[in-house]
Amino acid sequence: MNKNKITAIDVEYFKVPLAEVLSDAKHGDHTHFELMLCRVTCADGMQGVGYTYTGGKGGRAICSLLHDEMRPLLMGKDASDIDGIWHKLQWEYHYVGRGGLLSFAISAVDIALWDIKCKRADLPLWKMAGGASNKTKCYAGGIDLNFSEAKLLANIQAYLDRGFNAVKIKVGKDDYLEDVHRVEAVRSLIGPERIFMVDANYSMSVKDSIRFAKAIEHCNITWFEEPTIPDDYLGYADIADAINIPLAMGENLHTIHEFEYAFAQSKLGFVQPDASNIGGITGFLQVAALAKQHNLPLCSHGMHELHVSLLASQAHAGYLEVHSFPIDHYTTHPIKLDKGLAVAPDMPGTGVIFDDALLAPHLVKHF
Amino acid sequence: MNKNKITAIDVEYFKVPLAEVLSDAKHGDHTHFELMLCRVTCADGMQGVGYTYTGGKGGRAICSLLHDEMRPLLMGKDASDIDGIWHKLQWEYHYVGRGGLLSFAISAVDIALWDIKCKRADLPLWKMAGGASNKTKCYAGGIDLNFSEAKLLANIQAYLDRGFNAVKIKVGKDDYLEDVHRVEAVRSLIGPERIFMVDANYSMSVKDSIRFAKAIEHCNITWFEEPTIPDDYLGYADIADAINIPLAMGENLHTIHEFEYAFAQSKLGFVQPDASNIGGITGFLQVAALAKQHNLPLCSHGMHELHVSLLASQAHAGYLEVHSFPIDHYTTHPIKLDKGLAVAPDMPGTGVIFDDALLAPHLVKHF
Repeated sequence: MNKNKITAIDVEYFKVPLAEVLSDAKHGDHTHFELMLCRVTCADGMQGVGYTYTGGKGGRAICSLLHDEMRPLLMGKDASDIDGIWHKLQWEYHYVGRGGLLSFAISAVDIALWDIKCKRADLPLWKMAGGASNKTKCYAGGIDLNFSEAKLLANIQAYLDRGFNAVKIKVGKDDYLEDVHRVEAVRSLIGPERIFMVDANYSMSVKDSIRFAKAIEHCNITWFEEPTIPDDYLGYADIADAINIPLAMGENLHTIHEFEYAFAQSKLGFVQPDASNIGGITGFLQVAALAKQHNLPLCSHGMHELHVSLLASQAHAGYLEVHSFPIDHYTTHPIKLDKGLAVAPDMPGTGVIFDDALLAPHLVKHF
Repeated sequence: MNKNKITAIDVEYFKVPLAEVLSDAKHGDHTHFELMLCRVTCADGMQGVGYTYTGGKGGRAICSLLHDEMRPLLMGKDASDIDGIWHKLQWEYHYVGRGGLLSFAISAVDIALWDIKCKRADLPLWKMAGGASNKTKCYAGGIDLNFSEAKLLANIQAYLDRGFNAVKIKVGKDDYLEDVHRVEAVRSLIGPERIFMVDANYSMSVKDSIRFAKAIEHCNITWFEEPTIPDDYLGYADIADAINIPLAMGENLHTIHEFEYAFAQSKLGFVQPDASNIGGITGFLQVAALAKQHNLPLCSHGMHELHVSLLASQAHAGYLEVHSFPIDHYTTHPIKLDKGLAVAPDMPGTGVIFDDALLAPHLVKHF
């Protein structure tokens, strides 16, 4: 018997409410996030847990891909053949891919297989994925465009009180001068030394991005994230050529080819893949290799409870986003800071262990 | 009361078996196709029917997007606001988009809204979408890589017997010389005058594409379709520069931005959007406008029972693909040829009216 033979794949769909409404310039109000768990069980009882998430829409279609399509395809396959399964899923569903929802579903499967791989090797993910360190620089990523200035500043102060030395805010108000004012107010609050980024969620034209960036250059901004639509690779280069703030993107690039185009054409300063939508840990590490080759710092978007291990593992890591969706609150190891650095969990596996009791009230469907 | 207010959206999921197994180089064997119908009903009882299809995988995720996500969003909206709804759907699901499965679901909604628009105007789609003509050049697109040479030739002969003056075959055998031999055999059968294309379903590298194309240049090939992966826009240009056969692609480009990159970088000779996966008739006409701007003939992939009207409507139409998935067999107006040209239906609406009795045995679920 091959102990790695996949004998069961369970899919669970959760809708988890947020403590308060969070807004950005393009996705509007977030009231909850969706969490899709994929548990892969092997013939010897070994189990790996993978997952993906959304800002509230499309989760059930991801569950359909996992349960209706991938489960029957993967039953009986060898769970240790991670690369083989990754490529099989990409090609099998190529016609209804590439990227998009398919990448979210592949991510959940892939993370579960990596969880098994790490557990069998008795290694934590940060060692298995590269082993450069067990700590990484990080920042608190606010979703705060709807906050009043007073609330915005109170929120930033709360980040500082939790030990963060780096923060990011949303921009993209109808009047860009209001954005400029909020950026200046935050810089004034955090002092001249701390790391500070802004994120427009692709709400601006190329011209407006340049105007806005020039107006905040004096605020020492580490990066300007997603000024315009992610599809406009060359537009990013036009912005980069015109301003003195590095650009960042990645959360909306869902295939390695989209990243290849961004690396080749967009003149980025930082890249931000998300293992939940770039094809899991396998996809994330492909982007990490490209970033190394292009000499760019590797950052991340979302799901910090997993990314903390991936960024810690890479010598060219930039900043881990500690995201405003509190997925880690529903795990046994919420994110921990040590002198401003995020610390990767040290147990075998991905280090992301969901607390079933905490999640149970939010279960919509178990497939 | 606004008569255009959307009061119901019904989604039906069919799995329709093919008469025989059809194969290409990358998707493997096709045993059936999936058909997802989206019926939109207005306050005054007017109903439009939209649809999309797949080669057999992912259809239930598309149904989830239509039923779970878009239905509640669109109830009460104005069905005549086609552009507004198209953009709303693109942005609302942007994070789990762009392209991929989302584009298939948007297509089904959009086609239903166009059906309503045409019916209210009492116009057939070919007039509503442009009106250049009610006929269009066409070709029979075989999915025949698994056919023996004898069967391949018999299949081509059957196309000629049905009145086709243009045919396409699949290539991508392990030994490219076998492909060359099949191409020569087909050219010999159809004579020197008839239009003849080949389709590799992105199974070749750039180098192999060039080698193969040079080996069939003497066969007067109208286009070489999808030699390599659709993501490699610049690879297409390298192939185009090296060979004397025009390139074609489009069925795997699912956003207008992907087409923009192909137009700008790939040195194509023909473009082949598919209204079932580029965002419906609205998306198809966006690509049509780009093709006109770049002086390229507009062709199509799949669902010929709808595309016949769209190609006929455009003065810069190239060739309609009459596809091997017989969706039109399940409608009241299967494709009709007149002296080798395909004739667009003349009734108000899209001209695609499904025969419920024929489809009923293949219904898997009515949402």
